[in-house]
Amino acid sequence: MSEVEMDLKEIYDLAKKVLLLNGCDEENAETVANTVSTAERDGSISHGLFRIPGYVASLKSNKVNGKCKPKINNLSQSSINVDGDYGFAPVAIKTGIPELVKITNKTGVGVLTISNTHHFAALWPETEALAEQGLIGMACTAYKPSVAPAGAKKPFFGTNPISFAWPRPGNTPIVYDMATSTMAMGEVQVAAREGHKVPLGTGLNKDGEDTNNPEEIANGGMLLTFGGYKGSAIAMMVELLSAGLVGDLFSFEAKEEDNNDGGPARGGEFILAISPEIIAGKGWADHSEKFFEKMLSLDGVRLPGQRRHKNRLSNEPRKINSALVEKIKTLI
Amino acid sequence: MSEVEMDLKEIYDLAKKVLLLNGCDEENAETVANTVSTAERDGSISHGLFRIPGYVASLKSNKVNGKCKPKINNLSQSSINVDGDYGFAPVAIKTGIPELVKITNKTGVGVLTISNTHHFAALWPETEALAEQGLIGMACTAYKPSVAPAGAKKPFFGTNPISFAWPRPGNTPIVYDMATSTMAMGEVQVAAREGHKVPLGTGLNKDGEDTNNPEEIANGGMLLTFGGYKGSAIAMMVELLSAGLVGDLFSFEAKEEDNNDGGPARGGEFILAISPEIIAGKGWADHSEKFFEKMLSLDGVRLPGQRRHKNRLSNEPRKINSALVEKIKTLI
Repeated sequence: MSEVEMDLKEIYDLAKKVLLLNGCDEENAETVANTVSTAERDGSISHGLFRIPGYVASLKSNKVNGKCKPKINNLSQSSINVDGDYGFAPVAIKTGIPELVKITNKTGVGVLTISNTHHFAALWPETEALAEQGLIGMACTAYKPSVAPAGAKKPFFGTNPISFAWPRPGNTPIVYDMATSTMAMGEVQVAAREGHKVPLGTGLNKDGEDTNNPEEIANGGMLLTFGGYKGSAIAMMVELLSAGLVGDLFSFEAKEEDNNDGGPARGGEFILAISPEIIAGKGWADHSEKFFEKMLSLDGVRLPGQRRHKNRLSNEPRKINSALVEKIKTLI
Repeated sequence: MSEVEMDLKEIYDLAKKVLLLNGCDEENAETVANTVSTAERDGSISHGLFRIPGYVASLKSNKVNGKCKPKINNLSQSSINVDGDYGFAPVAIKTGIPELVKITNKTGVGVLTISNTHHFAALWPETEALAEQGLIGMACTAYKPSVAPAGAKKPFFGTNPISFAWPRPGNTPIVYDMATSTMAMGEVQVAAREGHKVPLGTGLNKDGEDTNNPEEIANGGMLLTFGGYKGSAIAMMVELLSAGLVGDLFSFEAKEEDNNDGGPARGGEFILAISPEIIAGKGWADHSEKFFEKMLSLDGVRLPGQRRHKNRLSNEPRKINSALVEKIKTLI
């Protein structure tokens, strides 16, 4: 696989330029370009430049509003909604997070619902942003169906990721962000392209039979939830929180509505913030550090998010797939 | 296995009598007897009379205060703590839930932390109680170490259950309550007693090697988290919420402190409530019913909690292990 080297500024500039030339205004282009370059910075490449062709397709088809102006609605003392004006989710999230921090620091816990957006990014940027301000963050979102609930042989849930972040004053937060399916669909597609098998239990073929052939899972088949019926219960919770509670589309509704242009479907996101300072009181940080220390004293244990944070420290240029860069340049 | 038949009133009366005679006051005995008979009612037998010898042992050793008077502390507009006065958790939870409902109906979301309690019961009673009042409920608690984090070969997490309930006005709520380990330790002990193997991947022996022998897992070995490193991330989140945020004992601390009398160790619990009426607004219930309808239209799918709710409808006496009843009678 041929690769080119690009530094983070070049990645950001390329993303911004392509977005500006395809229907985004300055503010929208900058926000999404920041999401893309931040993902590349952390080695989260499936949410980096890889997403640009999809972002552009959804602008070109007029599914996504590249000039969105998200609007904050105060719902109650401890909850707010941001209506994303049918734009990309990072723009709505950027609008809502500072308000969420404010209400959480006042009342101890806050909910931010994001609606009328198109989500194509990771969730760790928002939970990590909360943790960097001393709050616990939790977020989840649903997506078009590609995962069978436990017992079923048809896709119904999205890969429905869930992210959690715990603040560590003076240190990078603990952050996880994971699909509630056995694998992310992108990983299955990569395995198919490279001719690798996947473990049995990853997914089913179109007839609902076990298969270790990623091609059969990705094309007409489906993924399974992680950890069987327990993961299925969590994937269902993600649907209920990010669609039922947000008042936006469930995965099955997003599929009915989407124009399949290759860009992100419409949907909502649920974000929760909690203040440990208010709820646990002084000493909470030292107490949890004792826990991390003890956990890390076990051989073989890694704290979630540490690899990403290590990638972040590198000042080296990032290696980007050459074919992808060529493809993006045709969009200028 | 020989069994006797007892109706729910007999179960409640037996539990209450034993608790009263072993150090509980009227209020404490009634609350815990209700927890026990409610578990038997729903077929959740590992949380029913099965727990009485442990409850009694912890009263006899003076670890647990059977005359506890839990105290509510208001932390902020949307969060409260109940100090359980070193009694059994159901007493503190019963004290806190009505207050949690009040603040959640006012501010949209509320956190209830339970501290200084001894937890030996299921979590669904509290999340279901919230859902029966129209709120989304979430709860989790940590327990003494019996589960290895992903990558480790030593127990560090408790079986750390998590429960979630979604309200369905006019219908029984959707409720799940599950250990974040592959199996509950009680199930492993039953398999050992009955001479069954468990699937590989359930746990490790004392040397950290895979085993399908439940005896080796239960005695000196350990369970694994459900769904590998993803379940491990969730088990870790349970530690952080129910100990770090509550300001009570992590699993490893509970072990250091416990007197191993066979009763429940000390610990905290995290409970979250959210109002869909305030946050999603009118129409939320119809919208989520569409989701459940669509999900149930798939062959092979069951909604969590339905089996328990079906058990509840039976007016028949419950079948109780005779040896257990004899053992409990020796405690009178």
